[in-house]
Amino acid sequence: MSEVRIATVRPVAEAEATGQVAEIFADIKQTKGIDFVPNLWRVLATNPPQLDAVWRSLKALMHPEAAGRASQLDASTREIIALAVSATNGCAYCVNSHTAALRKLGLSTEALGEVLAIVALFNTTNALVEGYQIEPDILPPLD
Amino acid sequence: MSEVRIATVRPVAEAEATGQVAEIFADIKQTKGIDFVPNLWRVLATNPPQLDAVWRSLKALMHPEAAGRASQLDASTREIIALAVSATNGCAYCVNSHTAALRKLGLSTEALGEVLAIVALFNTTNALVEGYQIEPDILPPLD
Amino acid sequence: MSEVRIATVRPVAEAEATGQVAEIFADIKQTKGIDFVPNLWRVLATNPPQLDAVWRSLKALMHPEAAGRASQLDASTREIIALAVSATNGCAYCVNSHTAALRKLGLSTEALGEVLAIVALFNTTNALVEGYQIEPDILPPLD
Amino acid sequence: MSEVRIATVRPVAEAEATGQVAEIFADIKQTKGIDFVPNLWRVLATNPPQLDAVWRSLKALMHPEAAGRASQLDASTREIIALAVSATNGCAYCVNSHTAALRKLGLSTEALGEVLAIVALFNTTNALVEGYQIEPDILPPLD
Amino acid sequence: MSEVRIATVRPVAEAEATGQVAEIFADIKQTKGIDFVPNLWRVLATNPPQLDAVWRSLKALMHPEAAGRASQLDASTREIIALAVSATNGCAYCVNSHTAALRKLGLSTEALGEVLAIVALFNTTNALVEGYQIEPDILPPLD
Amino acid sequence: MSEVRIATVRPVAEAEATGQVAEIFADIKQTKGIDFVPNLWRVLATNPPQLDAVWRSLKALMHPEAAGRASQLDASTREIIALAVSATNGCAYCVNSHTAALRKLGLSTEALGEVLAIVALFNTTNALVEGYQIEPDILPPLD
Repeated sequence: MSEVRIATVRPVAEAEATGQVAEIFADIKQTKGIDFVPNLWRVLATNPPQLDAVWRSLKALMHPEAAGRASQLDASTREIIALAVSATNGCAYCVNSHTAALRKLGLSTEALGEVLAIVALFNTTNALVEGYQIEPDILPPLD
Repeated sequence: MSEVRIATVRPVAEAEATGQVAEIFADIKQTKGIDFVPNLWRVLATNPPQLDAVWRSLKALMHPEAAGRASQLDASTREIIALAVSATNGCAYCVNSHTAALRKLGLSTEALGEVLAIVALFNTTNALVEGYQIEPDILPPLD
Repeated sequence: MSEVRIATVRPVAEAEATGQVAEIFADIKQTKGIDFVPNLWRVLATNPPQLDAVWRSLKALMHPEAAGRASQLDASTREIIALAVSATNGCAYCVNSHTAALRKLGLSTEALGEVLAIVALFNTTNALVEGYQIEPDILPPLD
Repeated sequence: MSEVRIATVRPVAEAEATGQVAEIFADIKQTKGIDFVPNLWRVLATNPPQLDAVWRSLKALMHPEAAGRASQLDASTREIIALAVSATNGCAYCVNSHTAALRKLGLSTEALGEVLAIVALFNTTNALVEGYQIEPDILPPLD
Repeated sequence: MSEVRIATVRPVAEAEATGQVAEIFADIKQTKGIDFVPNLWRVLATNPPQLDAVWRSLKALMHPEAAGRASQLDASTREIIALAVSATNGCAYCVNSHTAALRKLGLSTEALGEVLAIVALFNTTNALVEGYQIEPDILPPLD
Repeated sequence: MSEVRIATVRPVAEAEATGQVAEIFADIKQTKGIDFVPNLWRVLATNPPQLDAVWRSLKALMHPEAAGRASQLDASTREIIALAVSATNGCAYCVNSHTAALRKLGLSTEALGEVLAIVALFNTTNALVEGYQIEPDILPPLD
């Protein structure tokens, strides 16, 4: 096989997929409205139970309407959380993927800048809190 | 001084604050609508230029109306980003503070659960992407 | 020198190595059963005391039989720990290196998938614990 | 309610649990062989779909026999991965929980020391690789 | 536009910059004594208030003489902190940039090795402290 | 034993130490000029080879004169690196310990503020670089 190396395992090609993997690949393309299966899912297909579990979670949380559940958050907020986590962890694949999703949802360069400025601000305050070991303010009782 | 240890430096008490620090303390309480100065700001007051810079950034980004600028994001989305970053970094002070802010904005326990479930999901996908070293999908040109 | 840039310092080529560095390079190849010196060690060779300290630690912990000590863990478990840490930290070089070592020890794609699924799961539970600031359960006394 | 604060939400008490939550609480105690529901699960019970999803994943991966699947890894190796991730992320709850699980599986203080020494070693090599920006060695083709 | 992709947004070219952005670009080149605008600043220029805020902070802290303030730290120590943070976070751009700055300040390969050895050592002790959950020693009162 | 829980293992008390552990405990107190053995070392004493390896590294890097080697960095710079790493990782024990060491070396509250402001700044720029996926500037050849 002469496929370009894109991971430490050889990803499953769409044409190779059968059974449950093929069904999930089809569901991913339909749910996301895209015409290819992203590398993440092709790699997870080397471990079908994990492909199933991660796709099930991601579909439920990020595509609630397709999963038949109600969400308290709108689609942009959900993708913004994904970007905030991925930027903080420094995950290139994930930043690229969620930025593309946000663009598709109409996020402007200006609004993207605002999201990342807030991400950056709280990486700063987190570092200050840890650097000075600041204790939490006393919180009111829960009930 | 018998003050309880809440950091590696002795925080500035509200009653001690003078000049620029006192002005910033007053602005923090007014802008946030609270009647005390949180520990973060009392600790940063030991380094007034940093207190000024961090408060200026936080006020501009998190309280844009008070800072006289327009924001593309609503107040809840901004606090959700702060919580997502702080949970990912494991910063106790910051998680407590931003959860309290979201509660004040009316976020339900159910919606908080949804936010944290999404934060958790992308910590999982980030780890999978890094663990398999999955390369980004080819992206379309920017223009 | 027209060598390809592989780090922020110029790595020491095998042919250039003399004295203690040459001895450590030879020990690395023999202990690991490989016929080249990986980039990590060629870069650390720019700081020989650090090369010596890191190799000494790695040999003792990861190649205990060569270092003349007993280990409570088998070779695969030791490499699995290395991969779990490197995936969590997002270190590409280290993930590649330890995945290759696990492959050499016979780890199947399916078992690698199980390892990374567990790594991903605990990145999720860690994020939930931090995101909700869940306190540890009360533990029994140590003795 | 006078319950001690153990999270930013009020955890569900065992006596309060009904329906699916009560069933999962019972399954957790039976599967893990413990007589209380740990805080993590009581907090996740404030968001039942997440409780269900995380418990389902954790049961499948960490208690495969109870979930009716085969595992390529033994129970100690699985818990060692959990500890390695949690130590690297600095998650106190998780370190305590997985250390307790490893103790129950018979891990000695000496073997725990070896696990953590390896975790520490690869946090060092990860930092060196990132600090020098060392590129991966050229890997052989996958097939 | 056929510009090479260097970020998820199209960076502002020097020739395109006008008004405040052009002024900041000029100040960056003059303050740093370089003849090009690094990618970081060209990308932040897509969000001018953030460009202004980050440059203002960086100029004040890293080029205090140009910002008209006194610093308690010398230029090398300041860049060493930047490198230590960036290596710990695994930020390639930042490691490259601050290593280049330290080279310009005259740091030898040997001293760079010492800096990174210390960075690596404390990534190890941090992991051990978290892995064993070691509590802080009792500290003397602050005053 | 009624000792207070300070870790997931029972630390070795000074009075219990014998042989190599007792020698290292004595060397720690003498080298650091303190009259107690900090918790880190008492916990590592449960795994004597690791106690020996970590203390040997730390003594060589942080107390070079006691280890009989020359350092390119002064004592404050070395401790500042330790604090920068520990603040970025959010390690409470380590932040407390290195802040105390810096105080003993005479660092003022103002200079500590400057150190932590720089740590915070580069946690911000790291997040921006990762959030936008900014590629490194082209660097000059190494030789």
